Order: sequence, then C-alpha cells, then structure tokens
Amino acid sequence: MSTSIREQALACREASIHVAGLSTERKRALLHDMAVALAADAATVLAANARDMEAARANGIGAAMLDRLRLDEGRLDGIVRAIGAVAALPDPVGRVTRSEVRPNGLVVERVRVPLGVIAMIYEARPNVTADAAALCLMAGNGVILRGGSDAMHSNLAIATAMRSALPAHGVPVDALTLVGDPSRETMVELLQLVDIVDLAIPRGGEGLIGFVTEHARVPVIKHYKGVCHLYVDSAADPALALRLLVNGKTSRPGVCNALETLLVHADIADTFVPAAVAALRERGVEVRACERSRAIVADLAAADNTDYGAEFLDLVIAMRVVDDLDAAIAHIRRFGSDHTEVIATRDEIAAERFVRELRSAVVMVNASSRFSDGGELGLGTEIGISTTRLHAYGPMGAESLTVERFVVRGNGQVRE
Amino acid sequence: MSTSIREQALACREASIHVAGLSTERKRALLHDMAVALAADAATVLAANARDMEAARANGIGAAMLDRLRLDEGRLDGIVRAIGAVAALPDPVGRVTRSEVRPNGLVVERVRVPLGVIAMIYEARPNVTADAAALCLMAGNGVILRGGSDAMHSNLAIATAMRSALPAHGVPVDALTLVGDPSRETMVELLQLVDIVDLAIPRGGEGLIGFVTEHARVPVIKHYKGVCHLYVDSAADPALALRLLVNGKTSRPGVCNALETLLVHADIADTFVPAAVAALRERGVEVRACERSRAIVADLAAADNTDYGAEFLDLVIAMRVVDDLDAAIAHIRRFGSDHTEVIATRDEIAAERFVRELRSAVVMVNASSRFSDGGELGLGTEIGISTTRLHAYGPMGAESLTVERFVVRGNGQVRE
Repeated sequence: MSTSIREQALACREASIHVAGLSTERKRALLHDMAVALAADAATVLAANARDMEAARANGIGAAMLDRLRLDEGRLDGIVRAIGAVAALPDPVGRVTRSEVRPNGLVVERVRVPLGVIAMIYEARPNVTADAAALCLMAGNGVILRGGSDAMHSNLAIATAMRSALPAHGVPVDALTLVGDPSRETMVELLQLVDIVDLAIPRGGEGLIGFVTEHARVPVIKHYKGVCHLYVDSAADPALALRLLVNGKTSRPGVCNALETLLVHADIADTFVPAAVAALRERGVEVRACERSRAIVADLAAADNTDYGAEFLDLVIAMRVVDDLDAAIAHIRRFGSDHTEVIATRDEIAAERFVRELRSAVVMVNASSRFSDGGELGLGTEIGISTTRLHAYGPMGAESLTVERFVVRGNGQVRE
Repeated sequence: MSTSIREQALACREASIHVAGLSTERKRALLHDMAVALAADAATVLAANARDMEAARANGIGAAMLDRLRLDEGRLDGIVRAIGAVAALPDPVGRVTRSEVRPNGLVVERVRVPLGVIAMIYEARPNVTADAAALCLMAGNGVILRGGSDAMHSNLAIATAMRSALPAHGVPVDALTLVGDPSRETMVELLQLVDIVDLAIPRGGEGLIGFVTEHARVPVIKHYKGVCHLYVDSAADPALALRLLVNGKTSRPGVCNALETLLVHADIADTFVPAAVAALRERGVEVRACERSRAIVADLAAADNTDYGAEFLDLVIAMRVVDDLDAAIAHIRRFGSDHTEVIATRDEIAAERFVRELRSAVVMVNASSRFSDGGELGLGTEIGISTTRLHAYGPMGAESLTVERFVVRGNGQVRE
C-alpha cells in the first residue's frame, strides 16, 4: 500500500521540528554531507537522467526543455558546488532583528524562526531539486518537492542521495520529501493541506503558476513572468543607455530578468531610436516598434498590444516612443508584471519619481535589469523572484524562508 | 444599476495608487480630518447604530455580541481618538531597512512599499471599520471593508464620514470602500479577485476564518484563536507564577490573549496546584483538571481532551500536571494554536529551551500573556494577531501592511 500524500506531508512536518532545532554548524555539516553523497552517487544520477532524457525525446519534448532537463558531469558538479554555497550562507534562524525595552521593563525581541514546511512545485529542472532542498533546510524548514514528471528519475536519484545524509545528523529522512506520484490530483491534494504546509512556491511557466494559484488553499508566493522595461529618459547618457539595453536584452534572453520592452523619451527619439535599432540588429534582435519609432526607422516591424506585455524570452524586443516620464510610468503600470524596471537618466528627480511611482519588486537606476537576481543583490542563492507583494517581493533568499516572531522577557509584569 | 464588487475593487485599486503617493504629513492630515468628520457626524452614526441594535435585538442576537455592536458617545469618542493615535504612528512607507554597496558599486536598498489593496473581513464590531481603515491608509494602502451585516448601518455611517475627508487630499473616495452587499456570494467574489486584492485579513470566530480560508484565492493572513498556555516550571517563583496566572485568566477573559490552560511541573504540584485553585476560585474561575491535579485537590472537575485546546473566552481554565519541560512542550505542540505561550521559571536554560522549541508567534518568559498585543509590544495600533506563519506572525501593526522591495542605483553597470 502506497503512502498517501497527507501521510508523507505529516511525516515531513514532524521531521521539520528536528530541522528547526539544528545549530548553524550542524546544518552546514549536513549540507556538506549531502553534497558529498550526491557526488558519490554521480553515476546513478546520470543513469537516471539518461532514462528521463530518452523518455523525453520519445515524447517529442522540445529542444529548450531537453536542455534544461539534461545533466552531465559538469552540470552535476555545479549542483554539488551549489549545495556547498548554500551551506556558506549566513543562517537566518535565530537572528534577532529588533530588540526594545518597554517602559514597564519588558524586553521585546523579534527573532527569525523557520516557516515550517515548504512545498516547492516546479517543472523539469533537476537542479531545482538540490537547490531548493538545500535552501529550505538551511533556513530550518522541512521541504516537499514536487517536480515535473519528465525529470522524475533524475529528481528521485538526487533526492535519495541527499536524504541519505540526514539520519547521521539526527533528522528523519522525511525532512526532505520528494512526491513520487506525478499526478495532478496528488499535487492538488498537497496544495490543500492547510494544517501541514506553510507555503507553496511554484516555479515555472504561466500554466503551472495559474494551476497552483487556482487550486491552492495553502499560502502561495508566485514567481510570475518578468516583463522587464528599460525607460531611456531625455536626460539619459545615450552610451550608458545603449549598454544597459544590449546587456539587458542579449546577455541571456531566456531568463526572467531579461529586458522585453524599450521605452524612449520623445525628445531623444530621433537619435536614440536609430542607435538602439542598430545595436540590437547587430546582435540579431528583432525589434517590434510603435508608429512613432517606425517614422524614424522605416523598416521596423509594427508592434501591437500583445507585444507590449509579452515575455518573449528570446531575441525579440518591443519598442515604444513615449511623450515623457508620466507616459513611461503609465505604460509600465498597464503592461508590466511588477518584476524589474530600469530607468536610464542623469536627472535625479526623474529617477526618484520613477522609483517612487512604480511598485515593481526591483527598480533600477542606471543599471542592467540582469542584476535582478539573489546572488547579484547580495542574498546568496535564491529560491526564486517573488512577484507576490506579500512576505517577500523580489529575489528570495534563505531569510525569506523564515518569519519574525516575538520573544518577550519579563520579571513578573502583569497587565493592568 | 448597482456597481459590481469587481468594479468597486478596481476603483479601490486605482485610488490606492494615490494613497501610496501621499507624504507622511499628508496622511496624518488626512486621518486628522477623518477623525474630525467622524466626530461631527456623531448623531448620524449613533442613530444608525440604534437601528442596527434594534434589528439585532429583534433577531435574538446574544448579549455579548450586542455589547460589541453597541456604540454610545463615549465609545464613539474612543474610536475618534484611535484614528488620531494611528496618525501619530511612525510611517512605515519609504523606510530604508537595509542598504549595501556591492563590489561592482551597485547600491542595493530595501525599501518598504504599501501592499496595495487590503480586504478586511470582520464581524459586527463597528470600531474595526474605523481602526482598520485608518491603519491601512496610514500604511499607504487602499482598503475594502466587509463587515458583518448586523452592523451594516453603523459601518456605513462611519465609512461615509471618513470617506468625506479624502477628496480634499487628492484621493478618490474609493480608497476606502465599504462593501454594501452583505451576501456571502459577494464576499466570495471579493476573496477571488486575485488580480486586484493583495491581502485578505479575516477577524472573527472560527466559522468566519474557516469560510474565508476555504473560499479565498487571494492571500490570507489568519487571525485564528488564542489557546494560550502558562507553564509553571519547577524552578518558578510561585508568587510570580500566581500573579501571571490570575492576570492572564481573569483580567479580560473574553480576549484571545487570555490564558486557557495551566501546566504545572510535577515537582511543585503538591504546593502550587492548591494555591492556584484557591486563587482562581476566589475570582470565580472554574477549573477543569487532570487526574493528577484531582489527586491533590479532591473536588476539582475532570478535564477531557476537548478542554485542552479549547478557547473558553470565559472564566474557565484547563489544568494539567506534567512530568517536566519536555512534557509541557509536547502538550503545547499538540493542543496549542501557535498564538502565545508563557513560562514561569528562574531557570534560564529551561526558559531558552521553551522559547526555542515552541514555534508560537509570541513566547513570554515571566510575563503575562495579556501583553501579547500590538500596543503593549510597541507596534502602536494593531490590525490583529497573525497565527499564519508567513509575512507577519503575532501582533500586526502598520509595518505589517507594507512589504520590502529592492531599489538599485548604479552608474551604468552591466552583467558579464
């Protein structure tokens, strides 16, 4: 008889209490041992991955997804080293973030504690199995992994290796649970365990995010698409703006912090639009532009409203000339996804208005959108980039997998 | 034709952008004007409340609920003054909580921004209408209030007075929206507006919380019941422990931070149990006790497992003798509601274990559970006490109605 998802989740919650009680040094030793176990199991993991790859090819899976699924010795080594990097992070648990003495002598501290049990829902990326497990455990949580069925053998091999390190540190293996049943019914059941699961984090395409949001009764932090904008102000340094444009669009077009739309202030459009088009075309980028842009560079393809707001994840960009800063802000409010926006300007007042009036998770002044990443912003490894404006907003590191609670110390105070 | 809840919520979201842009001084002036407007409308509000009271009496509503519903000049004055107290709070919006310069020169700041639109779901307590509106607006949010139908006339009169102050400060009145349709269907529709409502906060009985959790698709922070425990350790100062017991149980038994269960270490039970029973009985408290307690004080009523875990909200307490600290922790883990727990002890190691091993939102050492309150812990006015271990855990003040985002300033940095 197979174990139900509820029983698995209950066992994970029970085990999570042991994880929460581990010291920083103990957690580091645990992750170290997990990395060693995974490296030792390399042949098993690669063989499991070969099975997944074979099935995926037989199922006619596309090239981009096949590439995300594929492991080799080099990639597996990267996964092992990433576990070590998580072990080196500062431990968020137990950190006293504020301490205050009240007039009646009570000492009120805010102290970070683990969330409890985190369910990670993702697609066919085996590296997420190791990354998410390491980060959740380092933050003192139990973790339930529900990966895509295309990567099931790879995920199982990785999880099995990592779990093998738990008992020696006094933690039941259920602290790291991989959901073995890839059915949607089981996923829905997991997402409705309100008395067990403290947070679900979906990472993947719009379909997955939508499905999780629709069916979850547990709290969800969404990692939705990144429709990132660069607004080139009339007071921009044109060379700097071009650098941000080329880097944002072309350095890695398939990721969520890549630029998708360029907005150009009308006052500089006559010179900046041709320069931008030339720089983009030189790197093979297709430009879809508004009528005002096309009046400047005649042979541009026309953009429509589906191009504004599109997450191309490819060498394609939408371009629009706007009257001023207000029009740029209005465009981003209408078409943006609250992920990352950039302004290029030397005008500090314009920069501050852009920062204040947009509510995106990350707002950049004169810097590339590609820095919107936990590692680049100083968080260490990230579990994703939240576009939910609650708990965490923007890149989420280990600290975002904990919450502040109150510890109060007195000497007999009572309330009048 | 009546306006749909979706249209109302959209108008609130549109108006919330104006609230988010207000300066601290402007928000304070706005709340001041709201307080003045409410005071000026006192006769209208009291007349509306009289209508609600009449209908409630005709509907056979119980005495406790009638008391919560009832307004008089003194209570209304208290509500007006509470708005002034919110206006005096520190403004959480725009606060830079961290600032770091990265090796590449990027300046990374974390800055608090409003959540957006908050839906407050509550029962027949007209004061919540004013408190929640003031706190949400002070934190830069739009607010949608859905109060109980029994208080509808009172809530409408209060909201109308407060809304009248908005236009003079450049904010559309929809920033403070009261849902006029008391049907459950409309509440469900509101709770599913995932593209508009950023957070729902239910406050009320278990039935309301359960209904909201069941039907919400928007994020919910629960304010669930408070089953607060006092554990009297073998190393406790008995006089101090008795003071915490009497204060925690009897100073205001009907609130969520009142004590509901007393746990006594076996080593001191022979002396502490009789003293506790005497002190409680003197104040009219009914004690329901375990067999070991009843072996010490013969005429105690027997507790069963429904008494452990019960939120009596009345002059009733459950009592249990436990073998040691571990047994106390195990009892609280099993029966507690993650709200507030207290240990009375002079043993610092026992105190730290109690703090570390329990995951409740507030843990007290040698202080009354009745201090588990936003005002008492230094947050100013509270919107409730979260028992959801995400975003906010424990008393929630204005800061909990905002979230940290990233502002990054560079001088042309691109990512390699």
